[in-house]
Amino acid sequence: MTDLLPVVVVHGGAGFIPKERSQLSISGVCAAVQTGYAILKGGGSSMDAVVETVIQLENNPAFNAGCGSVLNVKGEVEMDAIVMDGKTLASGAVSAVRNIANPIQLARLVMDKTSHACLTAEGANQFARSMGIEEVPQESLITEYSRMRWRKNLAPDANPVESQMGKAGTVGAVAVDLEGNVACATSTGGMLNKMEGRVGDTPIIGSGGYADNQSGAVSTTGHGETIMKITLARLILFHMEQGRSVEDASDLGLACMQSRLGGLGGVVTVDPQGHWAAHFSSKQMSWAAAQRDIMHYGLYTGEHFTQSIN
Amino acid sequence: MTDLLPVVVVHGGAGFIPKERSQLSISGVCAAVQTGYAILKGGGSSMDAVVETVIQLENNPAFNAGCGSVLNVKGEVEMDAIVMDGKTLASGAVSAVRNIANPIQLARLVMDKTSHACLTAEGANQFARSMGIEEVPQESLITEYSRMRWRKNLAPDANPVESQMGKAGTVGAVAVDLEGNVACATSTGGMLNKMEGRVGDTPIIGSGGYADNQSGAVSTTGHGETIMKITLARLILFHMEQGRSVEDASDLGLACMQSRLGGLGGVVTVDPQGHWAAHFSSKQMSWAAAQRDIMHYGLYTGEHFTQSIN
Repeated sequence: MTDLLPVVVVHGGAGFIPKERSQLSISGVCAAVQTGYAILKGGGSSMDAVVETVIQLENNPAFNAGCGSVLNVKGEVEMDAIVMDGKTLASGAVSAVRNIANPIQLARLVMDKTSHACLTAEGANQFARSMGIEEVPQESLITEYSRMRWRKNLAPDANPVESQMGKAGTVGAVAVDLEGNVACATSTGGMLNKMEGRVGDTPIIGSGGYADNQSGAVSTTGHGETIMKITLARLILFHMEQGRSVEDASDLGLACMQSRLGGLGGVVTVDPQGHWAAHFSSKQMSWAAAQRDIMHYGLYTGEHFTQSIN
Repeated sequence: MTDLLPVVVVHGGAGFIPKERSQLSISGVCAAVQTGYAILKGGGSSMDAVVETVIQLENNPAFNAGCGSVLNVKGEVEMDAIVMDGKTLASGAVSAVRNIANPIQLARLVMDKTSHACLTAEGANQFARSMGIEEVPQESLITEYSRMRWRKNLAPDANPVESQMGKAGTVGAVAVDLEGNVACATSTGGMLNKMEGRVGDTPIIGSGGYADNQSGAVSTTGHGETIMKITLARLILFHMEQGRSVEDASDLGLACMQSRLGGLGGVVTVDPQGHWAAHFSSKQMSWAAAQRDIMHYGLYTGEHFTQSIN
């Protein structure tokens, strides 16, 4: 055990965040990271920490996950989520699930309570019912802001900035607990005006996230279809297996995505020793980390604020 | 260009294949590989070759894909498929799709005709309708054999050999065309008596398949949830990026799956120069390859028959 443990790092999505919403995004990731950190400090597992952190972000309407999810082309909410446990390589995911307040909780139940790793669409909802997870009205997941963006993007003269915004706001977390176990969790409403049934990178193991006690854990955000093409989370951990630091490996993964495919995104990465990175090639990514009773956070490239945690 | 091109390698699933069915499995992969090879010899693309090869296996009731798919716990057919193009890293997948004779064709349409990489469940079926793909009655995909196995496995005293059989029969192909472009395609009915909505490794990029002109292409088969935990296809290609041969990289990937997780499976692998491997850690995997007008095929470890292609 190093004095770098425990640690938790959170993102609130890479992309373009309009100025009037950036404060909500920053305050959201800062609040969530403290929830995760308190669990870890109390001896909780990295899995508990990332799930509780992401639940808080799903419940926060400022993010594109749970309440606040973007709408598909039909104006409906379909959500994707994944968790992975670096100790066992066990993972659980749900894709295109509806009427669930906390898809990340359902993804964890897929991991803990089934012999499967991913359940999709109505099958995922059936499983939720069998587990006693309450289904919520779709309206409770839709904000006025989501509906406004959906309407604007339906117009034939839709503004490309609004279009790009549609890709932001996925949430995720990685953590290392006092025992050195790593875990990741990622949750999203996907891409604005996506086709019904579209599955992005988030619930795809190795793309939306990956965790292995032998190397580390990653949660990703950005253009889903591009992240999938290079299996971004797994790619970063392969670089770490080759001896790269969390910073270098994160940058190499993002650089590959940009140079080969022109895609932008962001990641939060930890290694089992507690080194961490929150890197992005997009204009912005709201992020926060907590370690040694200090909270770190930022939004633009190069921005790095700190604040002590009481 | 080397004299090793073109090449196509096919598998008909890793696992246990009952003796009375092994001849059907061998003759099926041998017929399919010749279809793919004829396309490549005629100057066709590796993508065309793997898709047409897999269509033939989906149409063959001896395999667990398309007609002949295993049944989920409700006695229904839900299928997964993926294609990937090594030239562009573009991919297309469908998961938990129903009433489609050739899911691999639908996966290719997702790649070619949408901005997405994966469509699931009813959304995938809606897309199929919009593309004019005919939906077929579920009964046309169900064989007497599938129904018998489903019934036997529902019994509380289900025989574990029958259970293991439920994991066999996924089909896949990899190819390199005369231009050196690699591609992969994988299609399956999934795991016998799976939960409704279960998504296995097959449609997951990096798990069921991966293709990159810079390293090669892989299609996998075996216990889906275990393949996902190590992203088997991407893992093998990482070993090839590190300079390993197709044989060594395939063995290293399968060995990792066995030593870390006790999982068995099989793969077909090519590199852009036309070297190929058909390796498995399971008792059997039906496979066939075609290169330099010679067909290679086998079923048990160490078995390698050859036959000239007229």
